[in-house]
Amino acid sequence: MLHKFIKEKQITPFQLLVAFYFLAIFISFLLLRIPGVYKEGQEVSVLDSLFTAVSAVSVTGLTVFDLSETLSDFGVMILMIIVQLGAIGVMSIGTFIWLLIGKKIGLRERQLIMIDFNQNQLSGVVRLLKEIIKILFVIEAIGAFILSVHFMRYFDSWSEAFKHGLFAAISATTNSGFDITGHSFQPFYYDYFVQFISMILIVLGAIGFPVLVEIKHYLWMKNPAFRFSLFTKITTVTYGVLFLVGTLVILLIESFNTLKGLPWYEKIFVSMFHSISTRSAGLTTIDVERFNEATNLFLSFLMFVGSSPSSVGGGIRTTTFAIAMLFLINFANGRKEIQIFGREISMEDILRSFAVVILASLMVLIATMLLSITEPDATIAEIIFEITSAFGTCGMSLGITENLSAAGKIVVMALMFIGRVGLLSFLYTLGGKAQKPKYRYPEERIIIG
Amino acid sequence: MLHKFIKEKQITPFQLLVAFYFLAIFISFLLLRIPGVYKEGQEVSVLDSLFTAVSAVSVTGLTVFDLSETLSDFGVMILMIIVQLGAIGVMSIGTFIWLLIGKKIGLRERQLIMIDFNQNQLSGVVRLLKEIIKILFVIEAIGAFILSVHFMRYFDSWSEAFKHGLFAAISATTNSGFDITGHSFQPFYYDYFVQFISMILIVLGAIGFPVLVEIKHYLWMKNPAFRFSLFTKITTVTYGVLFLVGTLVILLIESFNTLKGLPWYEKIFVSMFHSISTRSAGLTTIDVERFNEATNLFLSFLMFVGSSPSSVGGGIRTTTFAIAMLFLINFANGRKEIQIFGREISMEDILRSFAVVILASLMVLIATMLLSITEPDATIAEIIFEITSAFGTCGMSLGITENLSAAGKIVVMALMFIGRVGLLSFLYTLGGKAQKPKYRYPEERIIIG
Ligand SMILES: [K+]
Ligand SMILES: [K+]
Repeated sequence: MLHKFIKEKQITPFQLLVAFYFLAIFISFLLLRIPGVYKEGQEVSVLDSLFTAVSAVSVTGLTVFDLSETLSDFGVMILMIIVQLGAIGVMSIGTFIWLLIGKKIGLRERQLIMIDFNQNQLSGVVRLLKEIIKILFVIEAIGAFILSVHFMRYFDSWSEAFKHGLFAAISATTNSGFDITGHSFQPFYYDYFVQFISMILIVLGAIGFPVLVEIKHYLWMKNPAFRFSLFTKITTVTYGVLFLVGTLVILLIESFNTLKGLPWYEKIFVSMFHSISTRSAGLTTIDVERFNEATNLFLSFLMFVGSSPSSVGGGIRTTTFAIAMLFLINFANGRKEIQIFGREISMEDILRSFAVVILASLMVLIATMLLSITEPDATIAEIIFEITSAFGTCGMSLGITENLSAAGKIVVMALMFIGRVGLLSFLYTLGGKAQKPKYRYPEERIIIG
Repeated sequence: MLHKFIKEKQITPFQLLVAFYFLAIFISFLLLRIPGVYKEGQEVSVLDSLFTAVSAVSVTGLTVFDLSETLSDFGVMILMIIVQLGAIGVMSIGTFIWLLIGKKIGLRERQLIMIDFNQNQLSGVVRLLKEIIKILFVIEAIGAFILSVHFMRYFDSWSEAFKHGLFAAISATTNSGFDITGHSFQPFYYDYFVQFISMILIVLGAIGFPVLVEIKHYLWMKNPAFRFSLFTKITTVTYGVLFLVGTLVILLIESFNTLKGLPWYEKIFVSMFHSISTRSAGLTTIDVERFNEATNLFLSFLMFVGSSPSSVGGGIRTTTFAIAMLFLINFANGRKEIQIFGREISMEDILRSFAVVILASLMVLIATMLLSITEPDATIAEIIFEITSAFGTCGMSLGITENLSAAGKIVVMALMFIGRVGLLSFLYTLGGKAQKPKYRYPEERIIIG
């Protein structure tokens, strides 16, 4: 039905997607202008409400004001709802577009994610949405329960503990990274339990919806013929490798800086948490401004790469990065075909990854130039960090967000929007008409961008 | 013969290339340790001589000491010889490797650059070298003559005028960008004649040797069937477009900064000169530290792109950038084949350009991280500028070169070396074994990397 609608109205999936996001942002903006959203005496400009709406819908988490000081309890609830819907939208649209393109891919991959989209499209979309909402809610509910019980030690009342537990669980699972503590997760610097639970929630949100579905089917279905898809293998391995490399780099550089003289487990936790968090969550347990410039440049790189496709994260995506790296290694060895996990990567996917990398790099360059003009007081390092954070929908900042000029805010908003909408589907939907090349290996498609 | 030697000894052209550069650097280093090269009382460390050798052989022009204060007249002569040989080596090796790979390309393109490499390889190489030396010397001689005559107004003696005229002509034509004024071309800020002549010399050096040969044949040969190759068309158009965009960006941003209130011709000349110069020459007429950070970030981008293949310039090369952009535009329009100037770009070239872009970006990222650790006093903006300058063998600097730590010098040297050796031929020679895909348009190969 949706497919028919798209066909008859000559609307491309891309246009539909952009329209959806504009609508979602507009509604969120209106919600954030309801009287009572902000604490009494707090003046929030129209631009700042819009910025917050874009940041929440795209689950980025950059803030131009301190949420804990500015938002009322009602406002916090509104924000939670926007973030929640944003995360569901992001996940389902990502997956939906993939399925739409998947029509050209063949049955096998679609079967693997267990949504029979072909037979009845409306019921397919509904089932997809249900599945996503179910998985997200189950993860969040368990996370919120554990964190709430744990937070009893910090707060006098059950309701305060629950409010913070729920918000932290949603913030971590949706990878939005908003905080109502006023200092991200810094109050939990010594609370390894909270950090551990949060890391698990972050990973579950960022690892990609198809991966979660496949894991679920692997655990519950007892089908001996079940095989993890190439996409799941590549994205999960890449996610893991980036996590390890990120942890090591932070550990290595910061052992001479912020982590100097700390006990080993503290070093490990700070490194692990921020490596995981740059993938898209944006939560921090220490003030990242204290990190070495080299560390922050590497974090910028990690945010640029981002997380899995069809997840709540952004960036160029793990698979894009993986293909670029595999391609480079293969190319240096004189091979053109990328073979991995007993499969061959399609030439189309290689070209897609090329397009995503180039477009993303150009975007970051232009945005950095613009901000360096509009924000004369910010250093290039701070600007690159801010820009990659927006593009990767991560939401970490070296502290310049609140002081951005109006023009600067618009650039960052555009980047969160383009980062979310653009590279996720733009190149997918527009660039999919090429002819199939011939290959000697069986092909299997994976998601890029 | 050379080809045979390579085959029998199992040496790849890449290994030969690396060996050549190591040898050239070592000899240059020894030359720069000859007593009398430096003025009396000047102590130059082994590392700094090595740095200068790498900088000269790769015609980059980054300097860790003030040449005018440190080098004797004899030293200036030695440096000129090294730069001259470096430029010839760079040009001929670039072209030679292309010819070697050109064996797979078909006769037509080789005929266009008029060197019959197939029939007798040794004579082919010798003719190639002769042709390059002839063209370079003719350009330099004319440039040196014009500049020397003009410099008579600055200097008391003919010999001083000639020394500076010759050095400036060689510096511009080889795009090495070394200066013996102590302040690059800043003494000629108001001398539009010198700037104009220099810009022409810079372009002739950076536009690519095959382009020069084709232009020569076009002008002299009166062959009605003569057609400029696709390579020449793409690289020249890209060079021109980048020049125009660079000029406009500098003009636009700096009109509110360094160029504020200046007469229009002064604005135009500063913008044009630095746009041309970033392509690989590295000469400057004003202190680029005074430029806006946004301008310098854009200059970094221009240096990263660099100049034509088989020229004295570096970077990822105009053709790599052109293909990446054409690919992106085509991809967004759902087309996979890049058609331009009535030809279709080979898929292999697209993949090569992908490999070059990714490898270069990774290199710049890693080098920037390393320098941000070894140079705690330098800003990321200064480091990115330095790194792209080294990679693009441009030689501009925001002033940190002289204060680099030993480790920092080694990183920059490695980058000049890898930038010169690596992406020029590394991916060419190693990555050329793939099967031919099928195409509907006639194909023609161009040079990348
Ligand atoms: K986030
Ligand atoms: K240079």
